[in-house]
Amino acid sequence: MGSVSGLSHEVTLQTINPKVLKCQYAVLGAIVAQAERLQEQLKQQPSSLSFDEILYCNIGSPQALGQQPITFFREVLALCYHPDILDGSETQGLFSGDSIRRALQILNQIPGRAVGAYSMTQGIKGLRETIAAGIEARDGFPSNANNIILTDGATPAVHMMMQLLLRSEQDGILCPIPLYPLYSASIAIHGGTLVPYYLDEATGWSLNISEVKSQLETARSKGITVRALVVINPGNPTGQVLALENQKQIVEFCKIEGLVLLADEVYQENVYAPDKIFYSFKKVVRFMGYQEKDIALVSIHSVSKGYYGECGKRGGYMEVTGFSADVREQICKIAHVYLCSTNITGQILTSLVMNPPKAGDASYELYSAEKNGILSSLARRAKTLEDAFNNLEGMTCNKAEGAMYLFPRINLPQKAIKAAEAVHITPDAFYVSRLLEETGIVVVPGSGFGQVPGTWHFRCTILPQEDKIPAIVERVTTFHKKFMDEFYDENV
Amino acid sequence: MGSVSGLSHEVTLQTINPKVLKCQYAVLGAIVAQAERLQEQLKQQPSSLSFDEILYCNIGSPQALGQQPITFFREVLALCYHPDILDGSETQGLFSGDSIRRALQILNQIPGRAVGAYSMTQGIKGLRETIAAGIEARDGFPSNANNIILTDGATPAVHMMMQLLLRSEQDGILCPIPLYPLYSASIAIHGGTLVPYYLDEATGWSLNISEVKSQLETARSKGITVRALVVINPGNPTGQVLALENQKQIVEFCKIEGLVLLADEVYQENVYAPDKIFYSFKKVVRFMGYQEKDIALVSIHSVSKGYYGECGKRGGYMEVTGFSADVREQICKIAHVYLCSTNITGQILTSLVMNPPKAGDASYELYSAEKNGILSSLARRAKTLEDAFNNLEGMTCNKAEGAMYLFPRINLPQKAIKAAEAVHITPDAFYVSRLLEETGIVVVPGSGFGQVPGTWHFRCTILPQEDKIPAIVERVTTFHKKFMDEFYDENV
Repeated sequence: MGSVSGLSHEVTLQTINPKVLKCQYAVLGAIVAQAERLQEQLKQQPSSLSFDEILYCNIGSPQALGQQPITFFREVLALCYHPDILDGSETQGLFSGDSIRRALQILNQIPGRAVGAYSMTQGIKGLRETIAAGIEARDGFPSNANNIILTDGATPAVHMMMQLLLRSEQDGILCPIPLYPLYSASIAIHGGTLVPYYLDEATGWSLNISEVKSQLETARSKGITVRALVVINPGNPTGQVLALENQKQIVEFCKIEGLVLLADEVYQENVYAPDKIFYSFKKVVRFMGYQEKDIALVSIHSVSKGYYGECGKRGGYMEVTGFSADVREQICKIAHVYLCSTNITGQILTSLVMNPPKAGDASYELYSAEKNGILSSLARRAKTLEDAFNNLEGMTCNKAEGAMYLFPRINLPQKAIKAAEAVHITPDAFYVSRLLEETGIVVVPGSGFGQVPGTWHFRCTILPQEDKIPAIVERVTTFHKKFMDEFYDENV
Repeated sequence: MGSVSGLSHEVTLQTINPKVLKCQYAVLGAIVAQAERLQEQLKQQPSSLSFDEILYCNIGSPQALGQQPITFFREVLALCYHPDILDGSETQGLFSGDSIRRALQILNQIPGRAVGAYSMTQGIKGLRETIAAGIEARDGFPSNANNIILTDGATPAVHMMMQLLLRSEQDGILCPIPLYPLYSASIAIHGGTLVPYYLDEATGWSLNISEVKSQLETARSKGITVRALVVINPGNPTGQVLALENQKQIVEFCKIEGLVLLADEVYQENVYAPDKIFYSFKKVVRFMGYQEKDIALVSIHSVSKGYYGECGKRGGYMEVTGFSADVREQICKIAHVYLCSTNITGQILTSLVMNPPKAGDASYELYSAEKNGILSSLARRAKTLEDAFNNLEGMTCNKAEGAMYLFPRINLPQKAIKAAEAVHITPDAFYVSRLLEETGIVVVPGSGFGQVPGTWHFRCTILPQEDKIPAIVERVTTFHKKFMDEFYDENV
């Protein structure tokens, strides 16, 4: 195509914003395109492949893999959307009594009961108050509804903070490596600099403050103004749950160095290790005696994870403490410019997640059974897959103490690394592509998250339903043995 | 406060991203803060003011002012959210037969029926197909589901295009003045340049191509690369519906000049003038015989306006034609980085809006009655308010041929202009603030939208319920007379 000056088909990859091009999103990369091709092939010629379904272990979307929603949450949402039926006699037969009461209570918190109106940018005040009360109940420290900003999931929250903090590529954000690629993509699109700190795989992906400090100093020596530290707890893709002592070190570090602490706590309900407890950074900060004036903390939560897994609803909140009211207003302005108004479904759901049924409520028994069923099953799946990975030659896998992922390390033979080089992809992408081709299992190459140079990993969710796990273990095991045989290093 | 080097409370207005500060959003400006103060005062001391409620005529949020939702849409949403009840015998008594059928049909379009899963970034394929079919039915020209990108309302759509097109402040976007401030804010936050073209108030806010051409040339002479032309049809805040001949000129202009045509068509269902018809730019382009290769066109639609007014749900789509698949992929990547996934409520609702009940469906009669009732009432309200404004001394008001707004011009006395200067606000903001203080009616100063220098306007929605209109007319009339008396120019 010759470039015809002045014509609109000049909107090409060469003429769009280069920051957009620069931004990578591994969870959606080449491997997903390959999976879609295979999915189509399965549809057209079902017997042409050695497996009969594609198992998407690449994305943390529980309901996509068959997890059932929490009944109470869905009942309340349905009633809020169609309040005409609240008074219907048939409604009593279809919905639990407390979901009807809760829907009424929520509708009364919404100005004019208008779930179809724009809400104020920060979110509906009554719902923010419910959420603040939920945070107080969780932490045992006060939470102010004025500090809560409702968001469409964690993604826009991260993006708003990046938009606020990043003025140019001279501004940096400290991020763990391996890292959920939302952060790297968001920093790239906002034109800032990612300052990496490496988690320590040998000690269960622990966060070593001296490593963070050394990276901060390196960045500063290059003229980078580091503005914030990102911590994902429980970790994504690494699954570790931080120890309280470690969290205190992080808080102290941010305070001393003047960094905003961006705490991604979307997996706070997903803790499987019996010896681990999730503490919010808000609780740790207050427990240490620090107040608003001492440290700027942003705690991010979402309705997409936990035992509810309502990814498609897009709900969540940021609790923003240690910022002045005028800066908070600027954050709300960003939200307004990008989104106009947070969707009300997500807002309602966030209030439900932070105030679920209590003992004595009509829905409580069912709610508890659903919640505990999901969480205990996730814990079993995490353990089975972890053991399976650790049983493979050349593979080691840290425990998924929390979150929804395992991030095993593969010690790839030189011959496999050479074979990957020959087709111009990274060795982990090569392994992952072969795994997909031969088993239908989609996982994400570690290179999409960052890893210590020369090490190779992949991220695998623990989300396939439990009855599918044995087959997954078998298929991965068979594939891996075959792969290692094929690429056995004769010369080693 | 002394600046303590390295401390996080250094996140101040002085140290945040200046692009954020630069961005203005009049619809949410000082007048809204004033309204909130008065609202609080009404609550605390109800008899301290001469009115008993604040009437929010500043935002196009129909349901916030009492418009009732379309029953069919809400029934389908409720059923999609709680599909467990689809088979319940009580459900037949509570929901119409076609809403049950439609919910089932939609659930079957969603992979695994999982309304709680992330959708692919572009939106659920089956829903996009429904929307494309709706566009075909509207225009009589083919529409391809691959060109549809589902969005959380029009705001993120605009923002995605700005993120794509604006590389630096040397890139410009041609925008009408007066202009819905989303565009100016989005261009500011993305660091581009707004290239204004003025609509002609004297001829009913018509769009004069020679004005656009002259502004384009001026911008080019300053080294600006103009990348796109924004057209809002029907207009916001100006309410005009473009004539077909005018639309053809615009298309021809964009084609010749190589501009992306960004057509904001969110008010396509809101046409009140009997002699005006809405034609989508897609239809006009195809009608002129132009194809994908000839012109890049983005048509933006939303569930927030029309007769449905479902602002809080955040739904909408962009139909992007004339872009290569690789550029479209980059647009989807932007959507993913900012939003992760479009909310499913909005996606479902967008499919409903583009495929409402048809004659013969069980819901059709009620649906038609609700739709026609809302649209004919809006037309009456528009006419009554337009007449009222035109009856006032020193005020002229073009017809609201469409959309949801009137944008009257006030010929303010010099004495009022001086009084405004004395309190450091614009004369229109001064008028609007007085109006609010004395009547409780919230409108937006014209300066928030841009206006020909030296002219003053305000934007007033036509959304208060019909029974409130006579009181509004009376209060505005009384206020205006008093205001003009107070600021009468003795020396003129």
